[in-house]
Amino acid sequence: MSDIHLFDQAVALQVRDDGSFAGNTHPAWGNMIGPFGGITAAQCLNAVLQHPERLGEPVAFTINFAAALADGAFTVKPRPARTNRSTQHWVVEMLQGDEVVATATVFTAVRRETWTGHEARMPEVPRPQDTPRTPRHGVKWLDRYDMRFLDGVIPSKWDARTQEDSLTRLWVRDDPPRPLDFASLTALADVFFPRVWLRRARLVPIGTVSMTVYYHADASQLAQAARGYLLVQAQGQGFGGGYFDHAGQLWDESGTLLATTHQVVYFKE
Amino acid sequence: MSDIHLFDQAVALQVRDDGSFAGNTHPAWGNMIGPFGGITAAQCLNAVLQHPERLGEPVAFTINFAAALADGAFTVKPRPARTNRSTQHWVVEMLQGDEVVATATVFTAVRRETWTGHEARMPEVPRPQDTPRTPRHGVKWLDRYDMRFLDGVIPSKWDARTQEDSLTRLWVRDDPPRPLDFASLTALADVFFPRVWLRRARLVPIGTVSMTVYYHADASQLAQAARGYLLVQAQGQGFGGGYFDHAGQLWDESGTLLATTHQVVYFKE
Repeated sequence: MSDIHLFDQAVALQVRDDGSFAGNTHPAWGNMIGPFGGITAAQCLNAVLQHPERLGEPVAFTINFAAALADGAFTVKPRPARTNRSTQHWVVEMLQGDEVVATATVFTAVRRETWTGHEARMPEVPRPQDTPRTPRHGVKWLDRYDMRFLDGVIPSKWDARTQEDSLTRLWVRDDPPRPLDFASLTALADVFFPRVWLRRARLVPIGTVSMTVYYHADASQLAQAARGYLLVQAQGQGFGGGYFDHAGQLWDESGTLLATTHQVVYFKE
Repeated sequence: MSDIHLFDQAVALQVRDDGSFAGNTHPAWGNMIGPFGGITAAQCLNAVLQHPERLGEPVAFTINFAAALADGAFTVKPRPARTNRSTQHWVVEMLQGDEVVATATVFTAVRRETWTGHEARMPEVPRPQDTPRTPRHGVKWLDRYDMRFLDGVIPSKWDARTQEDSLTRLWVRDDPPRPLDFASLTALADVFFPRVWLRRARLVPIGTVSMTVYYHADASQLAQAARGYLLVQAQGQGFGGGYFDHAGQLWDESGTLLATTHQVVYFKE
C-alpha cells in the first residue's frame, strides 16, 4: 500500500453483493476520539461516487455524525431515493455492526452551462508560497495537511480570554499533494478547528454533529485546481445551549469558488 | 376548520398504525408549481416533532426537495436512525404514492445551559412598525406572510440589469400573526425569493433542491418571540452550472439569533 496516497487508502471501499460498500478506518486519519470527521464524510460521499447507478456530480452533501467511529471495519449503504431525468437524491447510512454511526444525503446532478456569477469572492491575501507553514500537532490527521494560517490561528495560550470574532483563513492542501477531487474537497471542508476554541481560548470538548457542503465546481474545475493550495475560511454564527455553527468558503489558488460549507458542533460547558 | 390558523391546517398530520404520518397539501400555500417549499419543510419536521420517540428539540434540519408535490395526499415516514443518551438522528422520507418527493435528516438534542456568544449580530435597521408593508402578489403562499423589505427587494422591472450583490433583508411574520414555533420558524427560513432573480433582474425558472436550518433557540426562546416580526436576511454565494446557494440568518425583534439557514437552488439558463 505504500505507493498509494494515504487519502486514497482511507477512502477505498469494496463493493459487496448487496450493493453496500465495505471500508475500514485508517490510523493515519485518527482524531482525538475516532477518525477525523472529514475522512468519514469523504468515505460516505465516495460510496455514492462509486455507485454504478450514480447520475451526474455532487451538488449538495449533508452528513450527520451519529457516533464516534470505533477503529476497524464499517459499511456504507447508499440508496438512490429518487432519480429524475438529470438529478438524483441519495440517502446514505454508515454502520458499524448494527449501529448507525452516520447518516447522509447527497444530491447529484448533470450540470449544464448557465450564467455564472460567484458572489462570495476570495479575499486579498498573500500567496501560499509567501505564507509560512503553520506547525500543527496533537492528533494524527493534522499530519495529512499542509496548513498556512493567515488569520484566526488556533490560540497559542489557553488563557480563556474571550474574543468577539472567530474568522479563520488559511491556505491548505493535502500533504503530500494530491490532485483535488470531490472526496478530498469534502474532507477539506472539515479542516477548521472548532470556532468555540477561538472565541473562548479554552479547549472545551467538542464534536461536529452535522456538516453540509455545496459544490460550486464540476470535476473539470476541480482538475484545474490540481495539487494547488485552497484558500479556506470559516466564521462562527450562533453559540449557545451546547451547540455552535459556522459558515465557510473554499477557493482554489486562482480565486475560483469551489465550495461553500456549514456545520453545527456540540460543545460542553 | 375556519378557526384554525392556515399554518396549523397545513402542517396537521394524522399518525397511522405503522408509525407513518398522513398529510395533505393545502391550497392556501400554493407556489408556482406545487406548494411553497417552506411548508413542505415544516410538514417533514412536524412528523419528527409529533413522533412519540422523539428526544429533545431540533438543532439541525436538512430537507432535499426531490420532486414538485402534486396537490393532494402525502405520507411522511420519520425513523430514528440512532438514539444516544441526549441526542437523536432522524431520517425522514416524504412520499406521494410510491414516489419519494422529499428526503430529510433531523438532529434533535436535549439542550444544556452553556456559554452563549452569538457572533452573527442583527444589523441596525428601522423597527418593523416604522417599515411599510411590501405588497407581494402572484402565488398563494405570499398571502400567508406580512413582509416588510429593508434591502434587496424583488426587482420591480425585469430589465436584466445584472447586479453584483444579492443581500436581502426584511421583517416578516405570519399573517395573521401566530406564536412562533419550530415548524413555523422552519417555513420562515424559506421565504427568500431566489437570489438569482435579484442578481440578474430576470425571472428564470428556479427550484430549491436542498435547505438546511440550524436552530439557535430552544422552545422557550421561540415562545418569547411570540407573534412578533423576525428580521431575516440572505445573500447568495456561488452561482453557476445551473445552481446557486445562499446563506441566511433569522433574528427576533429583540435581536436574538434564532436560526441560520442555507439552501442550494436549481436555475435555468
